[in-house]
Amino acid sequence: MTKKRILSGMRPTGPLHIGHLVGALDNWVKLQDEYECFFMVADWHALMSEYADPADLKENLINDVIDWLACGISPKKSTIFIQSHVQEHLELYMIFSVITPLGWLERCPTYKEQLREITNRDLSTFGFLGYPVLQAADILLYKAEAVPVGEDQLPHLELTREISRRFNSLYKKDIFPQAQALLTKTPRILGLDGRKMSKSYNNFIAISEGPKNIRLKVQSMFTDPLRIKFTDPGHPQTCNVHSYYAVFAPERKKEIDELCHKAQIGCTDCKKELAEILINFLEPIQKKRTELLKDKKHIFDILEQGSKQAGRVASKTLSEVKGLLNLV
Amino acid sequence: MTKKRILSGMRPTGPLHIGHLVGALDNWVKLQDEYECFFMVADWHALMSEYADPADLKENLINDVIDWLACGISPKKSTIFIQSHVQEHLELYMIFSVITPLGWLERCPTYKEQLREITNRDLSTFGFLGYPVLQAADILLYKAEAVPVGEDQLPHLELTREISRRFNSLYKKDIFPQAQALLTKTPRILGLDGRKMSKSYNNFIAISEGPKNIRLKVQSMFTDPLRIKFTDPGHPQTCNVHSYYAVFAPERKKEIDELCHKAQIGCTDCKKELAEILINFLEPIQKKRTELLKDKKHIFDILEQGSKQAGRVASKTLSEVKGLLNLV
Repeated sequence: MTKKRILSGMRPTGPLHIGHLVGALDNWVKLQDEYECFFMVADWHALMSEYADPADLKENLINDVIDWLACGISPKKSTIFIQSHVQEHLELYMIFSVITPLGWLERCPTYKEQLREITNRDLSTFGFLGYPVLQAADILLYKAEAVPVGEDQLPHLELTREISRRFNSLYKKDIFPQAQALLTKTPRILGLDGRKMSKSYNNFIAISEGPKNIRLKVQSMFTDPLRIKFTDPGHPQTCNVHSYYAVFAPERKKEIDELCHKAQIGCTDCKKELAEILINFLEPIQKKRTELLKDKKHIFDILEQGSKQAGRVASKTLSEVKGLLNLV
Repeated sequence: MTKKRILSGMRPTGPLHIGHLVGALDNWVKLQDEYECFFMVADWHALMSEYADPADLKENLINDVIDWLACGISPKKSTIFIQSHVQEHLELYMIFSVITPLGWLERCPTYKEQLREITNRDLSTFGFLGYPVLQAADILLYKAEAVPVGEDQLPHLELTREISRRFNSLYKKDIFPQAQALLTKTPRILGLDGRKMSKSYNNFIAISEGPKNIRLKVQSMFTDPLRIKFTDPGHPQTCNVHSYYAVFAPERKKEIDELCHKAQIGCTDCKKELAEILINFLEPIQKKRTELLKDKKHIFDILEQGSKQAGRVASKTLSEVKGLLNLV
């Protein structure tokens, strides 16, 4: 039986952090055995938000891919490629553009939300409106049947299915599948300040973060605001530090729980311990990172091979599509 | 001194007619000696309006190029190519998309007009909104300094300059020129029914139209509505047939003028004569057409060579642009 195909991607907009690791990458690593996986560096999508200051794009791209590999994404199991290196993405994007009603995009809830929420970037551009159309092209170019996404991406995936249905119906052929969401339950950790962990909030711990920085950053974490003195009993269930224990040291969590409740451990010590847990957790990944960093050419080779492999699948889909549209 | 560079294109949406011939192609033929010319089959642009019924796209493409060649466009003088065969068009289109404010496109007067006027096609799509962005990419990819356009295209060219300025200013480098309109005065002929000559009105005489059809079509032309009987004096200045004389037989025009005024020639005879004039006018072009039709492979070779040549220029521009944007 052939494996089902999956496509997922990340935008190279900054260093990957432990939120990406436990929220997405760990899941990707597992999916590799069950599915035929296409993992994409979405550089066109990155450009949509970073166009005004693209200075770090190249550096981010290579660093992010090194993170992927260090975390266990394997070019032997999966196709790892750069979106802009497979020209068919833009071709299918153009074709989908001409069949996608403007209203579908203008009414997209994530679009409206992002225009409202993201205030440090001017996103009222033509390109940004097309964000989900490019996503549809990314997914359907590989005829991916499943897409591992977070709940926030569900409206985009619904749009992908609408575009797929519209194409199939306009050209009277079942070319594209109805890509389904693969909603795997992954742990979600908050940023150091309790908000969403994000590069723009600078409240993250990078996968590549050194021990010294990790200790400093963990010490700066918000804890239980009701525990003022050491002798006050803590409320671990509302403590951000505690939630990190749940993810990175579940076996130690219960003990910490009790110690905190009984005021037998202070926040400083609790955070000191967490910092060491994180350092240990990241150590093997960072060791692999250091190895990989020694030979950047090797990384580019992987990406080139992957992009060629992706291109072979993509060009097959595109020639079907071009045939239907009578494009020469 | 190097020649200035020009880019122009046509959408392969149907057979070219004598309006294209006197309004654009004759001008292109002349421009070939003075400028370095890039003539493009704008198939992506065609798809923007023809997506719902693209059955004739391929046939139109080859026929239109045959018309170009038959009218005197020469692959020895000019670069003749297919837009979709030079992948850099879509790459620059994407890059321009992310820096183009939505409002520029929504407010574009031609956009609003076309949405209002064109009722037999659904143009309220995302792709159609981007029409002038793709035009800007077409022009600036070749750093064309001049664009032979009609007055109706001036707003689009203004947008091209705005995008060019925005790019140059965002990335602090004078990459793109300010492309100027080349408003050559070309004759404008109306359709058989007095409206704009257009494929969609079916009121045209194709460049490839056979003698029998030309005679039938010219007989159907509207003439002076005030001349009811043969003995009524005519008003050639308001007669559509007369305006054709001005373009295709200016030396005969004055005589016809007088004969009509004095009611010494009837409309039927006047049209009969015009039909023969048109047949003679088109005869050498159609002879060349017939020759060219015998070897379609030769046409595709010209387009392939042209697309390669265009691609060499385009990839140079694009690698400059990608460098500025830190795209790998």
